[in-house]
Amino acid sequence: MTERNIQVQSLDRGAVEDETVEIVERKGLGHPDSICDGIAEHVCEALAREYLDRVGKVLHFNTDETQLVAGTAAPAFGGGEVIEPIYILVVGRATSHYVDDDGTEYDIPVDAIALEAARDYLRETLPNLDLETDVIVDVKLGEGSGDLQEVFSDDGPAVPMANDTSFGVGHAPLTETERLVRETERSLNGPYGEDNPAVGEDVKVMGKREGDHIDVTVAAALVDTYVPNMDAYEAEIESIREHVHDLADEYTDRDVTVHVNTADDYEDGSIYLTTTGTSAEQGDDGSVGRGNRANGLITPNRSMSMEATSGKNPVNHIGKIYNLLSTQIAESVVAEVEGIRDLRVRLLSQIGRPIDEPHVADVHVVTDDGVTIPDVEPEIQAIVDEELADVTAITQRVIDGELTTF
Amino acid sequence: MTERNIQVQSLDRGAVEDETVEIVERKGLGHPDSICDGIAEHVCEALAREYLDRVGKVLHFNTDETQLVAGTAAPAFGGGEVIEPIYILVVGRATSHYVDDDGTEYDIPVDAIALEAARDYLRETLPNLDLETDVIVDVKLGEGSGDLQEVFSDDGPAVPMANDTSFGVGHAPLTETERLVRETERSLNGPYGEDNPAVGEDVKVMGKREGDHIDVTVAAALVDTYVPNMDAYEAEIESIREHVHDLADEYTDRDVTVHVNTADDYEDGSIYLTTTGTSAEQGDDGSVGRGNRANGLITPNRSMSMEATSGKNPVNHIGKIYNLLSTQIAESVVAEVEGIRDLRVRLLSQIGRPIDEPHVADVHVVTDDGVTIPDVEPEIQAIVDEELADVTAITQRVIDGELTTF
Amino acid sequence: MTERNIQVQSLDRGAVEDETVEIVERKGLGHPDSICDGIAEHVCEALAREYLDRVGKVLHFNTDETQLVAGTAAPAFGGGEVIEPIYILVVGRATSHYVDDDGTEYDIPVDAIALEAARDYLRETLPNLDLETDVIVDVKLGEGSGDLQEVFSDDGPAVPMANDTSFGVGHAPLTETERLVRETERSLNGPYGEDNPAVGEDVKVMGKREGDHIDVTVAAALVDTYVPNMDAYEAEIESIREHVHDLADEYTDRDVTVHVNTADDYEDGSIYLTTTGTSAEQGDDGSVGRGNRANGLITPNRSMSMEATSGKNPVNHIGKIYNLLSTQIAESVVAEVEGIRDLRVRLLSQIGRPIDEPHVADVHVVTDDGVTIPDVEPEIQAIVDEELADVTAITQRVIDGELTTF
Amino acid sequence: MTERNIQVQSLDRGAVEDETVEIVERKGLGHPDSICDGIAEHVCEALAREYLDRVGKVLHFNTDETQLVAGTAAPAFGGGEVIEPIYILVVGRATSHYVDDDGTEYDIPVDAIALEAARDYLRETLPNLDLETDVIVDVKLGEGSGDLQEVFSDDGPAVPMANDTSFGVGHAPLTETERLVRETERSLNGPYGEDNPAVGEDVKVMGKREGDHIDVTVAAALVDTYVPNMDAYEAEIESIREHVHDLADEYTDRDVTVHVNTADDYEDGSIYLTTTGTSAEQGDDGSVGRGNRANGLITPNRSMSMEATSGKNPVNHIGKIYNLLSTQIAESVVAEVEGIRDLRVRLLSQIGRPIDEPHVADVHVVTDDGVTIPDVEPEIQAIVDEELADVTAITQRVIDGELTTF
Repeated sequence: MTERNIQVQSLDRGAVEDETVEIVERKGLGHPDSICDGIAEHVCEALAREYLDRVGKVLHFNTDETQLVAGTAAPAFGGGEVIEPIYILVVGRATSHYVDDDGTEYDIPVDAIALEAARDYLRETLPNLDLETDVIVDVKLGEGSGDLQEVFSDDGPAVPMANDTSFGVGHAPLTETERLVRETERSLNGPYGEDNPAVGEDVKVMGKREGDHIDVTVAAALVDTYVPNMDAYEAEIESIREHVHDLADEYTDRDVTVHVNTADDYEDGSIYLTTTGTSAEQGDDGSVGRGNRANGLITPNRSMSMEATSGKNPVNHIGKIYNLLSTQIAESVVAEVEGIRDLRVRLLSQIGRPIDEPHVADVHVVTDDGVTIPDVEPEIQAIVDEELADVTAITQRVIDGELTTF
Repeated sequence: MTERNIQVQSLDRGAVEDETVEIVERKGLGHPDSICDGIAEHVCEALAREYLDRVGKVLHFNTDETQLVAGTAAPAFGGGEVIEPIYILVVGRATSHYVDDDGTEYDIPVDAIALEAARDYLRETLPNLDLETDVIVDVKLGEGSGDLQEVFSDDGPAVPMANDTSFGVGHAPLTETERLVRETERSLNGPYGEDNPAVGEDVKVMGKREGDHIDVTVAAALVDTYVPNMDAYEAEIESIREHVHDLADEYTDRDVTVHVNTADDYEDGSIYLTTTGTSAEQGDDGSVGRGNRANGLITPNRSMSMEATSGKNPVNHIGKIYNLLSTQIAESVVAEVEGIRDLRVRLLSQIGRPIDEPHVADVHVVTDDGVTIPDVEPEIQAIVDEELADVTAITQRVIDGELTTF
Repeated sequence: MTERNIQVQSLDRGAVEDETVEIVERKGLGHPDSICDGIAEHVCEALAREYLDRVGKVLHFNTDETQLVAGTAAPAFGGGEVIEPIYILVVGRATSHYVDDDGTEYDIPVDAIALEAARDYLRETLPNLDLETDVIVDVKLGEGSGDLQEVFSDDGPAVPMANDTSFGVGHAPLTETERLVRETERSLNGPYGEDNPAVGEDVKVMGKREGDHIDVTVAAALVDTYVPNMDAYEAEIESIREHVHDLADEYTDRDVTVHVNTADDYEDGSIYLTTTGTSAEQGDDGSVGRGNRANGLITPNRSMSMEATSGKNPVNHIGKIYNLLSTQIAESVVAEVEGIRDLRVRLLSQIGRPIDEPHVADVHVVTDDGVTIPDVEPEIQAIVDEELADVTAITQRVIDGELTTF
Repeated sequence: MTERNIQVQSLDRGAVEDETVEIVERKGLGHPDSICDGIAEHVCEALAREYLDRVGKVLHFNTDETQLVAGTAAPAFGGGEVIEPIYILVVGRATSHYVDDDGTEYDIPVDAIALEAARDYLRETLPNLDLETDVIVDVKLGEGSGDLQEVFSDDGPAVPMANDTSFGVGHAPLTETERLVRETERSLNGPYGEDNPAVGEDVKVMGKREGDHIDVTVAAALVDTYVPNMDAYEAEIESIREHVHDLADEYTDRDVTVHVNTADDYEDGSIYLTTTGTSAEQGDDGSVGRGNRANGLITPNRSMSMEATSGKNPVNHIGKIYNLLSTQIAESVVAEVEGIRDLRVRLLSQIGRPIDEPHVADVHVVTDDGVTIPDVEPEIQAIVDEELADVTAITQRVIDGELTTF
């Protein structure tokens, strides 16, 4: 059949859904670490697109290192202000000078591109952040090693070589708790947030399941402009609690308790009120790769990669491609193959080898009762093989902004 | 009479208008040094206004230290781009925390105010500079020495004490060459520039008079978007030359030669083309206090103060107030007193003494033929006395943005 | 018995030692991410000590956010040079002003302390890095939230409250592959490195075990001063390979293959030569919390915490204390209790609760054949209880620099 | 005779020595502006030497833009400390990549050279500044315009072309007040300082002469380590006062009053005590070109150039060369020609013309009684001509560190 080294085995643990204690976390869009992830990825997409537009290929770059230094703020009911701006340093490598085969020279304004992309991202993501007063965006992009990658040349895609010996890991399906945590954040930062402008973007959700009881703990930064007083604050919190509780019914039949801003103390006025919607305005620093993994979650019950997916070049950087691809493979398998209760895909690269031929692609499966590994192995093999053959599609989807990395 | 120490004497040189060689220079609004001066002063005004709004008095600050690090650009006929953004560091001291007599605490967002003021200034002054891609504005404002100044308290203005032993100097009237140099820049950055968008804001004018011949040398950055090709460039340069030549007729009957962008070499394509209208985009750094003096000119034929006027706090900083005031006094005297051919006003402060009582105010005069010092002394004395008595008006005019400092 | 919620259960997977494929990685001391971890932790220790010296208690701080921007270098046989210095930004929060109960005011020079600690660490760790030419250390420490912690007051230690709802995880015993990877790096950066100055500190070790075969891949930056030519380079690489191979015999009977600097290409002169001993000199950025976990390893086969342990305040920051404590508990249990093949300790905090009373301490065990959970449960319970009761000892050991965090 | 345009004329004012009021200022070595001047010049010398060593010629550079952001300190009798380090940003342009005629490529570590030179200068100049805790030195050197200068090629010196239309000015002899001000600072920062370690390097001296009375006002930062208490402080101040008074006798027969640290208030403990010997530790920012002119003084009674001499490239930068050369010419003329009471030399360049052929070299003279311009004109002409012919010697002397620029 295939020449790729694809191994399908039984997972030597039970499904995460069946473990006694499960912990899941998601740092929302406005969390300082997520802001950095988002900027890094947005800069990455902008650079890749500009390289394609100007040179016809993606040149070497890596921008997975944004650092955020928190500001100081004085939030107040009805509208406060930022005292000391947030400082964001976009760090990385990018090729700014290129000579093509015809001797044509190109100067690519990589710093300017990164600056604009970072500011655009902040503007879109944090509507209550005033870019003229609340944040300083700085850029330090050095030259990289200079070995160019040409996956998207005019001659059509070729498969690049792995830049490192590394690995990626993906899981499917998500557990009830995982889905609930992820969708809680997405709802608060999505439809619910649109209807309730008092809800800031810095929403952190932690789910803890012990047996059949799930505790969902939400820490949500409220935006002071839309909160006139303490009563309004309390009402917003209660409204969030109810919304999340209702939402939970869609994802689980288990017993769910929802906690919102548990550290608040109304008596002494200690509440989670912000001017900008993010704790980055007051004391919470952030950086890339410290928060959500590529599937948007932190899941200590599951195997995780330490690699920062956001900001890495999507052409040959295994730390990005294999995390995104293994997640996609896991989802495809679960969608298409019957009888799978839990599944983990690991892709291990070998430096210098084509990225569609990993050193090993191992798939560990927990099957449903009555289903055996041999029952599902051929189908899984085929899907993995097909997805690997189409690995460069991941690159294109990253550039098109279709994939989330955090 | 007055108790102020005001001395009126004969100037021991002739009028500058009569010297054999006269050199005058003006760095236009878009020159890197002037950009820094302008930002420093704009930040100064914004801080002063915010202090008055919030606390009812101007607190201690000093923001006379902006540093500009040039970028890199790739200008091109029809429109180029900035490759590496300009980096601007706003430096200074400002009081960010204040407790008034009632114990009310104030947190003043001095960094945010400075950031916004700097960006506003750039937006207004350099319309071809894209603030999202072409410049990074950073701020480092430390706390000052903490001794507060309350000149504009609710009880009405009091006269503050001098912060230093220093001096200011002013001259009037301007010579023909001085006026010509100054008005050349103002016209190019004013009405002419509005009609001719190809003229950038970085206009540097040097005037050299030898006897009755004046050479006006203009270095004008053109903006590439409005210059489609080399012919257009040459036409713009010629148009500037003609305009300045016509302008000269308004200010002098002397013989004037106008040179524009003399370093250009059309043969090898070496011309003064920019994307943003300022040489800060490519290799020219700048800082406060390195360019024009308080009267808008660099005049080696005249006594000059080394103090940077821009950005200094306008309440008690002698380096600012006495330079502005002595210039204003000189102009008033010349406007009101007959028979003065050249005049220099020097105000010398003594630290800790009220600023309306300088250690010495000395006025040196070159009179017209047939006029003696005793003829003009009483009038001059009275004007100087009156202007000194009204010294706090300078502060208010600075805050209102009515005075130029460079 | 105990009132602490300590649960001992069977681990629902087999021992990692028995899994088919095992992947382990360690980033050595000189890896850019480890440099950041080390600086962050060194700054943390210095701040804690200074707070104790000056105020008698540890004030609020958190310094887990150092960012390294790579430099540019021109290594050369016999000695090259750094072209563009490495830039390191130490980021975090620290209390710089404190008033004690007697009204005594303290100004603590937190920036100066951090600067010195960072430079000291670099000097000690990277002997080939010239601090006068090769690196710029910058510091941005803001004020934190201001709620002070007083665990080490004069009245003896009290148990602080958890700062967050978070968790820590620890494992024991290490597998053969894990020990081999860790000890390979320690040996190369220890005794072997002392005898072989050509070996730089940036040593990255990856171990991959498939069944009973272990591949150890070492990427070792050589220091150009001690490598006169290509022959010497090859000899050094071969010597490292042999040394690691010999070392392997101490840790495993399995079949081991050692690879060193596999990306080298002697033909075209592409080798891993550096001037400073770290890839941070040329293109490799780094930041805190992106590399090794608290036990010094990256172990995708095991549950990992995303929290950066390095740099966090050791008094009440769960992300640090519980990772260190759970590792210590795991090691104690394995050392003292017979019959344990693999063990995972997880400590889950609840914000605002004393840190010696976690919400849950769950211990999952793989026992040896013939041993049951009830056989080991009482002993394990007792050890966990004892270690939790003594949790503040972790704080002290961190301050004394006795614990490694990466 | 000569083809150079050298004009000798009568100065249309009297000698400065004869003016009624004379003001002179010198900012000492440790003043924040002087620190910046010194760093800029030291970096300049280091770059020029390295270029010569490596490439055999001085490549394009300009480093006249250092910015100092003041720190915060807590001085205390017997020894205090710096709380927040001083931040120094070295700014400028330098060529980091060069290809010679043979095609040999050179990478010159300009940032590393600048960093080291700046730190070396601080270490030498400010012995009480601890470079590990008290200061952060950052560097931002961009590429310049790229047109290389080769004045010191292997074929011997050629005369370069002027980089700008600009001018330099020099005076001689110094007046008594000028000499007294300059020598006061040099003595306090020289022999007296060596014997009295309590005297810091930040010594600012202002001289004001009215008729035959000279007031010398010294502001001297004392170093807390060497000042155990208020009595010791008072004794140091009194000792400085006496020393300067004695010194005055060497330079003038006029009546001299010496004031030291006049802003001190012993009652309320407000004194000028520092930990590092410079006010840069607490609130006083600084930058290049804002302090002393090329002759080491600020002399509002004399014509001054606004150009920053320090840090400018010494090969073709008129703003540097002509200020140094005109000063040197003035001193030579006064040393060699009898009968000169005051003399001003101005050199006006024209962009693109050889620097030994200024557009005009005009020498204005006040002669002693009984001496006429024709008496001295030929000798002056000859000296000016000779000095201009040897202009490249200035470049060499700058590189050798033989000339002071501030």
